[in-house]
Amino acid sequence: MSDDPLVVFTPSGKRGRFPVGTPVLTAARQLGVDLDSVCGGRGICSKCQITPSYGEFSKHGVTVEADALSEWNAVEQRYKDKRGLIDGRRLGCQAKIERDVVIDVPPESQVHKQVVRKRAEAREITMNPSTRLYYVEVEKPDMHKPSGDMERLVEALEDQWQLNGVKTDLHILHQLQPVLRKGDWKVTVAIHLGDDTHPPKIMHIWPGYYEGTVYGLAVDLGSTTIAAHLCDLKTGEVVASSGIMNPQIRFGEDLMSRVSYAMMNKGGDQEMTRAVREGMNALFTQIATEASIDKALIVDAVFVCNPVMHHLFLGIDPFELGQAPFALATSRSLSLRAVELELNIHPAARVYLLPCIAGHVGADAAAVALSEAPDKSEDLVLVVDVGTNAEILLGNKEKVLACSSPTGPAFEGAQISSGQRAAPGAIERVEIDPVTKEPRFRVIGSEIWSDEDGFAESIATTGITGICGSGIIEVIAEMRLAGLLDASGLIGSAEQTGSARCVPEGRTNAYLLWDGSAEGGPRITVTNPDIRAIQMAKAALYSGARLLMDKVGVDTVDRVVLAGAFGAHISAKHAMVLGMIPDCPLEKVTSAGNAAGTGARIALLNTDARKEIEETVRNIEKVETAVEPRFQEHFVNASAIPNSADPFPILNTLVTLPEVSFNAGGGDGDGPGGRRRRRRG
Amino acid sequence: MSDDPLVVFTPSGKRGRFPVGTPVLTAARQLGVDLDSVCGGRGICSKCQITPSYGEFSKHGVTVEADALSEWNAVEQRYKDKRGLIDGRRLGCQAKIERDVVIDVPPESQVHKQVVRKRAEAREITMNPSTRLYYVEVEKPDMHKPSGDMERLVEALEDQWQLNGVKTDLHILHQLQPVLRKGDWKVTVAIHLGDDTHPPKIMHIWPGYYEGTVYGLAVDLGSTTIAAHLCDLKTGEVVASSGIMNPQIRFGEDLMSRVSYAMMNKGGDQEMTRAVREGMNALFTQIATEASIDKALIVDAVFVCNPVMHHLFLGIDPFELGQAPFALATSRSLSLRAVELELNIHPAARVYLLPCIAGHVGADAAAVALSEAPDKSEDLVLVVDVGTNAEILLGNKEKVLACSSPTGPAFEGAQISSGQRAAPGAIERVEIDPVTKEPRFRVIGSEIWSDEDGFAESIATTGITGICGSGIIEVIAEMRLAGLLDASGLIGSAEQTGSARCVPEGRTNAYLLWDGSAEGGPRITVTNPDIRAIQMAKAALYSGARLLMDKVGVDTVDRVVLAGAFGAHISAKHAMVLGMIPDCPLEKVTSAGNAAGTGARIALLNTDARKEIEETVRNIEKVETAVEPRFQEHFVNASAIPNSADPFPILNTLVTLPEVSFNAGGGDGDGPGGRRRRRRG
Repeated sequence: MSDDPLVVFTPSGKRGRFPVGTPVLTAARQLGVDLDSVCGGRGICSKCQITPSYGEFSKHGVTVEADALSEWNAVEQRYKDKRGLIDGRRLGCQAKIERDVVIDVPPESQVHKQVVRKRAEAREITMNPSTRLYYVEVEKPDMHKPSGDMERLVEALEDQWQLNGVKTDLHILHQLQPVLRKGDWKVTVAIHLGDDTHPPKIMHIWPGYYEGTVYGLAVDLGSTTIAAHLCDLKTGEVVASSGIMNPQIRFGEDLMSRVSYAMMNKGGDQEMTRAVREGMNALFTQIATEASIDKALIVDAVFVCNPVMHHLFLGIDPFELGQAPFALATSRSLSLRAVELELNIHPAARVYLLPCIAGHVGADAAAVALSEAPDKSEDLVLVVDVGTNAEILLGNKEKVLACSSPTGPAFEGAQISSGQRAAPGAIERVEIDPVTKEPRFRVIGSEIWSDEDGFAESIATTGITGICGSGIIEVIAEMRLAGLLDASGLIGSAEQTGSARCVPEGRTNAYLLWDGSAEGGPRITVTNPDIRAIQMAKAALYSGARLLMDKVGVDTVDRVVLAGAFGAHISAKHAMVLGMIPDCPLEKVTSAGNAAGTGARIALLNTDARKEIEETVRNIEKVETAVEPRFQEHFVNASAIPNSADPFPILNTLVTLPEVSFNAGGGDGDGPGGRRRRRRG
Repeated sequence: MSDDPLVVFTPSGKRGRFPVGTPVLTAARQLGVDLDSVCGGRGICSKCQITPSYGEFSKHGVTVEADALSEWNAVEQRYKDKRGLIDGRRLGCQAKIERDVVIDVPPESQVHKQVVRKRAEAREITMNPSTRLYYVEVEKPDMHKPSGDMERLVEALEDQWQLNGVKTDLHILHQLQPVLRKGDWKVTVAIHLGDDTHPPKIMHIWPGYYEGTVYGLAVDLGSTTIAAHLCDLKTGEVVASSGIMNPQIRFGEDLMSRVSYAMMNKGGDQEMTRAVREGMNALFTQIATEASIDKALIVDAVFVCNPVMHHLFLGIDPFELGQAPFALATSRSLSLRAVELELNIHPAARVYLLPCIAGHVGADAAAVALSEAPDKSEDLVLVVDVGTNAEILLGNKEKVLACSSPTGPAFEGAQISSGQRAAPGAIERVEIDPVTKEPRFRVIGSEIWSDEDGFAESIATTGITGICGSGIIEVIAEMRLAGLLDASGLIGSAEQTGSARCVPEGRTNAYLLWDGSAEGGPRITVTNPDIRAIQMAKAALYSGARLLMDKVGVDTVDRVVLAGAFGAHISAKHAMVLGMIPDCPLEKVTSAGNAAGTGARIALLNTDARKEIEETVRNIEKVETAVEPRFQEHFVNASAIPNSADPFPILNTLVTLPEVSFNAGGGDGDGPGGRRRRRRG
């Protein structure tokens, strides 16, 4: 045995001695080296490409001669002629071991390859999809040994792929016999590998060797929008992304109005279930069209959503979620058939819903936890996913806590007089000169600031239509910094501020950000009710975070991750000026983008991650804000916009918050700002 | 410990010592005694009734005093007042052990009770149904420990019933929350206990304690008729039985014409699939109505059928079954959801199809094997299920062989000039006086023979409409015994036989069994083509049996079991006169009735029997008659009707077969009888 050539695989470092003539693929399999193959070494799929290294490898104690592998053969040449093969590459099933050799397995030949995420701080996704392709050769029927075609296919999968107990649904039995004969008893099958409670299952069958791939969907089902990524289950690549408005919006803008709709209207929950499923199917058609693929090739889908959307999507009346004790019908992850949810993708497609954390902290928060992995963090991280509800996670590898806070839709531009969704024409960035009190701003769709040359031309097609969520945060924070707003949230009058842009509006004042009325456009102002709405929202967000910090027993966190589309566009400084997030060094505030969607994508591409997040969720300490007296307390204290007296020492080193107070003549006594003002006054 | 009272359970003989005050139910559970309980010992269900025995039991070494159990209590009294309780019975959950005691568990308190089959020789069915009821008390939701209602129900099932990993479909989640609250967190659930590849699953949920039961269907899906038994899954009792004609008959009387229909008509297989499923649903509605139960309480169904029906029912094109090598799409047993087959029973109902033995020997034959258990037989048994195809099993506990023989529909009264299905008005029994050659007969619907007083009145409503399968066998055998028919199958003329009932018909003769034409009724004759049809059918049947006997290397069998409705009505003597079955002592020929249906019922009531038959089928040696030259040989030799020269020694001791030969002037040269005649002549 010790005379047999030594084979060392990189990057794994796995090594062993094999008889001369052993194919590299065989050696890799025996050593457990991650080298892909769909055809099982028949020289058909060419997934097992490897690169032999030549020369002296002191690390491995090997000198590799040029004739370490068998000669380049006709199968390899045919593949190279037909499809191309990078110089130096060989097919692992064709190249045989002749002498000691070091073999590199390039990433694209690995089954469990890493999918690179764009953000530097994010961990990579290891490919381990639910469904894989296998090429098999099936025995022909024999009258003397009668057995079904299916049984012989199952045997072939056992013999050729060591896949045991493979099952199938009826739809495969319907096509099995003609497909086997068309492929002359050679077929490619897509197999869902199953899980603890489901056996491996044949999803699809193609005659002969199937060159293509199968797809999965990672879906972020939000109250307002439904966003989906279509992923290649072989490479992990996102081949298309698309989104639509949640059609349930017509039943209520926010979650609680949808719950009310279900309570007030018999069958209302079913109406909403139908609406969201129809929307989902429209989205899937759209995304498949965009990627030019057959929807029937979508064999897996992962969904993340908040508990109310979760229940409505599943067809469960969300009644119980509208009242204490906010009991979920089910909180565990769910593995379902797509047809049960009336989704028109592959007829046997499976669907996975991440677990819910609690009655107010859904599978979307679980997905954020999967993407941002606070449970693996060395330092104490606050993860905030801002939407109509804010889901808040706080923790590190010792412990993770979670809660939800009812921020309402103000951060999404709703309930704001000139508010709108983040779409071309919306003001998204604002600066106000502290001396002149004059604003400059940028509009979605243009890179040019409003006081720069070419601005008018750059917005010619979109116009200026309103302010989006991040814009309203910035303008309010800038107003505070410019002394146009006091800590209680009152806008000063033109007299008090010395700015003609401060105009009376009802019994209070408004700040005129843009007047497009001369050209028939809108007058865009920030009113005192706008500020009150944002104060309410940010107070809810801040109070949730503070509550978790109390539970952990800290006053500061090491870092803050802002998740969600809103979190991606928000300026950390302005968020802190507003008091949305706890004090924290600015460079420690990062955006995770659509972390819920990323979590869905991780769970789609790596089934191990599903088990991981189920475990994580079980261990998370759930905090219910609705029954925590401290939450109410924090909320009342948090509605003001910080001033120098507030406990934001880091913020105070960054900005100067003017000590102004606008004791308006009228109104506003009902607002939280007003309430606080009176308490302090 | 040895001071603790001794408890002996009968009939199991299990015994153990338990502390004073231990409830009998608890003791039974700890000893693994089969004592039923749905409520888990809460005094609600009263399924745990036991009978304490008093006196001296030398066998058990115990003397039982009258105070061996705790006193009769209020719970027992309430139950007795409300529902009645047999004297001497106690509730096992209420009666506590005080002193040494012998406890009898009556059959109705056993979970795995035996269901008695009517036939003495048949083994009993042990109850072990797929689905059982469990009463549980579920924890209320707690905001501080958020978990879904489903998760708390699953926990309760684990804690209170040791049922682990229970899953559910969406339909339970849709109703879970209101049902839990309606039952004040006490519910009864029906749980399908799963199998090797399916976890236990909640099928149904009722608020509080559910007094009722759930049902299952045992369905025998034949080419001609579909018959179903509705069974109580608790008691095993058949609560209703019903049947309909297979609606596929309009696409072809026999299996091969249906396969042809599918081949000749695009989508023809799907048409037939729809037809049989619609028929099935109509039958289920009918049977549920008859039993006055809600169809949604039918949670399990077992189907047996031949391979073509199997494929058409599953929606698989039977194309491959119409040609060698007769490859089944799948031969294994199938565990499916009823909705996959578009069956309108319980939405989560499961369906089990027995395995097929071979391309021509279906799940119906497997069911016969389960019912008649040749694999457990000490002596060599031939089991024949006569239908359009005859399925034949031969074997004993050493080995079982199986084949199928294409008998055609003649035995069912089809292809017979006066033939009809077995229905009121059909002649079913015939005797012919060997001297006068005059017949007497009996008609379905009447117990009176045609030559007895009151016959005319007894058939006043039905009339005499034709001959059914068993009638045609008897009349032909009787014709042979009376010398009206020669061994080749030719009917003699009036001159040759001396009977005016032998009338010319075409180029041959016919025997006039009944002339009702004077009253506007039919003239019922047995023609030579009728005899040819029966000769073909019986030759096929006999040849199949002979072929298996050749394989085993025997010339006789120890016993013959005739299965199927036809087998139930056929006279063993007449069958042997015709040469349908091999020579065998008459008292060793028994009828098993609808053995396929019984096999379906066994598989329905005892899930262990499913595993058992799967194993049996794997071990059966399959013989394909179509490719066995010996089959053709036997067939040619078997078309004649035995005469004294044939190797039927036992038959020859019973009857005298007249040595007649009617060499007709014309025709009939094409018939098998004719062929044989020429070969011998």
